[in-house]
Amino acid sequence: MTLSKIAIIGPGLLGGSIALAMRKVEPGAQIAVWARRAEAAQRVDALGIADLASTELDAVVADAGLIVLCVPIGAMPELAEQIAPRVSPETLVTDVGSVKASVVESLAPIFKNRGQFVGSHPMAGSERTGIEAASARLFEGAVCMITPDEDSDAAAVAEISEFWRALGCVVRMLPPDVHDEIVALVSHLPHLLAASLVDLVCACNPDALHFCGNGFRDTTRVASGPPEMWAEILRANRGPLKESLDAMIENLREAAKLLGNSDDTEMKQFLARAKTERDRLRRT
Amino acid sequence: MTLSKIAIIGPGLLGGSIALAMRKVEPGAQIAVWARRAEAAQRVDALGIADLASTELDAVVADAGLIVLCVPIGAMPELAEQIAPRVSPETLVTDVGSVKASVVESLAPIFKNRGQFVGSHPMAGSERTGIEAASARLFEGAVCMITPDEDSDAAAVAEISEFWRALGCVVRMLPPDVHDEIVALVSHLPHLLAASLVDLVCACNPDALHFCGNGFRDTTRVASGPPEMWAEILRANRGPLKESLDAMIENLREAAKLLGNSDDTEMKQFLARAKTERDRLRRT
Repeated sequence: MTLSKIAIIGPGLLGGSIALAMRKVEPGAQIAVWARRAEAAQRVDALGIADLASTELDAVVADAGLIVLCVPIGAMPELAEQIAPRVSPETLVTDVGSVKASVVESLAPIFKNRGQFVGSHPMAGSERTGIEAASARLFEGAVCMITPDEDSDAAAVAEISEFWRALGCVVRMLPPDVHDEIVALVSHLPHLLAASLVDLVCACNPDALHFCGNGFRDTTRVASGPPEMWAEILRANRGPLKESLDAMIENLREAAKLLGNSDDTEMKQFLARAKTERDRLRRT
Repeated sequence: MTLSKIAIIGPGLLGGSIALAMRKVEPGAQIAVWARRAEAAQRVDALGIADLASTELDAVVADAGLIVLCVPIGAMPELAEQIAPRVSPETLVTDVGSVKASVVESLAPIFKNRGQFVGSHPMAGSERTGIEAASARLFEGAVCMITPDEDSDAAAVAEISEFWRALGCVVRMLPPDVHDEIVALVSHLPHLLAASLVDLVCACNPDALHFCGNGFRDTTRVASGPPEMWAEILRANRGPLKESLDAMIENLREAAKLLGNSDDTEMKQFLARAKTERDRLRRT
């Protein structure tokens, strides 16, 4: 794709990384970044990663071929309401929210006939946050899920897919609600497990943290993510997440039963199945 | 410490790494490795990481100042019975088992008056196994727990601590049963959680594995560990582990309640507490 201008709304880890990656893959494109706070815009400017960094939405979105919303999902509808009247109906619009059913449901109507909105979720992140953690390589090899609904324009879907591919993503397309069930399992539940495990260890024996090895560090790494953002994500996806969590509790009850067995046979089978599946993941 | 000879019983990840690390820190010491299978002994020999690699216990343990049992915990008592009559009462003996109460209970009486046994557990490992994964740097910065009992000789405890320190470990001393409660929390429970999460995702939606990011990979990495070894470890520590698992299930039920709350306040507090504790871990 050839973009003459991209508008990035929100100068965090993802917004900053998109700016850095775009500079590499589309050196000719104008990169404009909107930030809510003047200091954040100044920081983007100081880092030299955008042609324009401003708190003025008008200037940032004017004539952009693509607008990417990179703010927390709770802040998206209000910004979308401000952006929609300012752009042409052909303008491509996407977002990077970790939950898609509620985001698509609220943003698609706002951009109806006033932009071409298609939801995205690049599965690239870090427990670190902010522009200082941004990287031009954040998206390399990451899966990006594109979640069109029945009203999405096929050409817009293709162009937004192409945008993520250009940044290095592997693009997969699926309906918003299917997306949400999947991230409940592979992202939101693991986050709750990590936080809950840290919480448990501290409650049972805070001294135990001094004895942890790499296994515990890895298992709980995501618990260092920003609490405000994560509380919002977990809440926005609470239906599918509650189902996954209930199923996980049931699974752990079964594991507790295996532990009580008089021999190891079933526990070995359980661990061997998990190993086989996890090893497969390593190779992909 | 100055050792003229160390006998390493078992040529796996830990045994191999001890041999490699010893070569660096005590270039003058003779390194002897015992393997059950001739091919394993030949492999050690071919890698040149020991002065002697053999299936003959006699030759391996003869005149060793320190013997380190690096076999699965289930194989330890039988080997200890064979080793004890062959060594002098001054010989230092330790092991690297991940569970300590049951190991100390079974090995200490075997070496009573026939060697100086003190249990160890270097918290250094990998989901990879075998000598091919061994590294001279495996122990650098790792915590090694030393678990003397009331009969342990103070000088032997000091020398074995010194051995692990020489390999790069941070040594912490604690009773076997306290050790087991701690590893139940920071190692065995995380292993069960990882295996259970992989199992759940595969049962709910095997396709979801194609969408996972680094968070899921990290959270489940340990599930790639060897099932036989882990089933044995979990079984040997099933008392403390069952308690930790029950507490974890209770914790997850609480998290499910927070998810059902009408606002985010408590969920944010829960995630913020976990982040604070996990961040502290990052700095240690």
